[in-house]
Amino acid sequence: MVIAVDAAGGDHFPEYPVQGALEALGERSDLKILLVGPSGPIEDVLSEASFDKSRISVLDAPEVIGMNESPASAVKSKRHSSIVSGIGAHRNGECEAFVSAGNTGALLAASTLILGRLENVQRPTIAATFPTLRGFRLLLDAGANLELKPESYVQFARMASIYAEEVMRIDDPKIGLLNVGEEPEKGTELHKTAFNLLASLPHFIGNVEGKDIFSAKADVYLCDGFSGNLILKFGESIPAMIQDLLHGTFGEMKVDEKTRRAVLQLLGRALDSFNYEHVGGVPFLGVNGVSMVGHGSSTPKAIKNMIFNAARCVEMEINRKIVASLKS
Amino acid sequence: MVIAVDAAGGDHFPEYPVQGALEALGERSDLKILLVGPSGPIEDVLSEASFDKSRISVLDAPEVIGMNESPASAVKSKRHSSIVSGIGAHRNGECEAFVSAGNTGALLAASTLILGRLENVQRPTIAATFPTLRGFRLLLDAGANLELKPESYVQFARMASIYAEEVMRIDDPKIGLLNVGEEPEKGTELHKTAFNLLASLPHFIGNVEGKDIFSAKADVYLCDGFSGNLILKFGESIPAMIQDLLHGTFGEMKVDEKTRRAVLQLLGRALDSFNYEHVGGVPFLGVNGVSMVGHGSSTPKAIKNMIFNAARCVEMEINRKIVASLKS
Repeated sequence: MVIAVDAAGGDHFPEYPVQGALEALGERSDLKILLVGPSGPIEDVLSEASFDKSRISVLDAPEVIGMNESPASAVKSKRHSSIVSGIGAHRNGECEAFVSAGNTGALLAASTLILGRLENVQRPTIAATFPTLRGFRLLLDAGANLELKPESYVQFARMASIYAEEVMRIDDPKIGLLNVGEEPEKGTELHKTAFNLLASLPHFIGNVEGKDIFSAKADVYLCDGFSGNLILKFGESIPAMIQDLLHGTFGEMKVDEKTRRAVLQLLGRALDSFNYEHVGGVPFLGVNGVSMVGHGSSTPKAIKNMIFNAARCVEMEINRKIVASLKS
Repeated sequence: MVIAVDAAGGDHFPEYPVQGALEALGERSDLKILLVGPSGPIEDVLSEASFDKSRISVLDAPEVIGMNESPASAVKSKRHSSIVSGIGAHRNGECEAFVSAGNTGALLAASTLILGRLENVQRPTIAATFPTLRGFRLLLDAGANLELKPESYVQFARMASIYAEEVMRIDDPKIGLLNVGEEPEKGTELHKTAFNLLASLPHFIGNVEGKDIFSAKADVYLCDGFSGNLILKFGESIPAMIQDLLHGTFGEMKVDEKTRRAVLQLLGRALDSFNYEHVGGVPFLGVNGVSMVGHGSSTPKAIKNMIFNAARCVEMEINRKIVASLKS
């Protein structure tokens, strides 16, 4: 299986994507990697590593899409960027998946435009993996669709359930609709309609609230991309916030250096479940291919895990299962 | 000044509201209290305390609105509930404010129906006080208005700014629009329109994101009640979540009892800024009166602080200032 890796994406390219790719090859002998990006810098990094040359190839894509570039115009104007070239290679069958730590919007735009949508999919979605007390769970839409139609909730629930079950290995994932209260009549008209449509799904557990996210009352949390984006970014700020609060307390209470270190070490370990490295990246669901995006600050380990997740999407044929699910 | 206190609201009535009222009287000699609720149980609690009888009176309201009752029908059917009687007493000038730890929806409905709206106010709003690294800040709407019109953002910004400045003592409060990105063109059409309208306010700092909440980049965070409710309930779950994660780590790492206690004590102190007791309650802004609601689990200290906040709303004449602001 060939997985393409965006070697011009993320805060530390090409080093981290290339290192992540090499680590993935080291752990799985059945994988090959197509590195997509400016070939000169990629070859420079490769020249310092030892690896089986038959398992890595490079697709030269000299243009770079910046993290803050406008997605639509970047995809249109930079045909030789890693994202457009890599997704193009995926469409042409040169690789089975494409993973990137680059510009999320650009990757979504390229994936939707170039790969197209799976049969019956109204809108592709980004499903974020979210840390809870019971491990990572899914929250979607994570910002690709700021406003949803009621039917989109059902499609997103079906697609995310398949990803949760096949890739995240969660049995019979429970689906919850994020809402302002538990009762079916809570929320806006949109949410009431969505609730009624979702009620036909076997693992729909009803409305869930903001307080139910960390406890993993559900496995798949449904919301519009506006709320989802706010919650995810808010959630990401928690570890730093707790550390800041603790540092303030250390000062006030004149806590000695040894105790500080012990407390921060325990807290760091407790908060390790927030570490996005473990999941690596999140999928675009509903596109006709396997396309995943990781955090801009993705480490080699995160890139490696994203490659493994993409490979699992291919092995478990999640797109075939999504199409079947949306037909039923 | 007479502040009415709902003695049939919250998880521990009438004890906690009555104790909170007595504590408030002990700290401020200029206050009088009107306790509203079933007079028998109230008198029982009072009979065990020593206080200046000229400063407390009781308004008998035998009906109790439960925490989970439907607000609209409860307000309509229970005319002799503490909420309807207390807000009625406020409208009749028997007290300058009403505070409650009871059913938020019922208090909002009663306040809006019985007190009415201030001149030019389209919709009253609930402004939540939210802990940040720089102290409490305001986030609204907190769930009273699940969907907003663009103009509502401007009205809410004006009302909340006055509350933040006069009651929370934040100079020139900075106003931020919660959105999915910083750039003015981010968000839905609604958010773009709201952004443009807000741009006329002197202290509008533009879009803020989920990650900017804890850092208090703004002092007043604007959002629709749907997102606001999700964020607030999510945020409230953080302290318990951190503690759960730490307990798991203690077990894994076989941390000794003494270290556990030390860590939890420091963490507890660090997270004390999340303690809603300090603020006591949140205001309904835009109603023609002073009406505040506190957490169902409000302690006597929280009730006392809610009484003080209500008194400050009266002293600072925030409603007169809101009316003036909405005229300008």
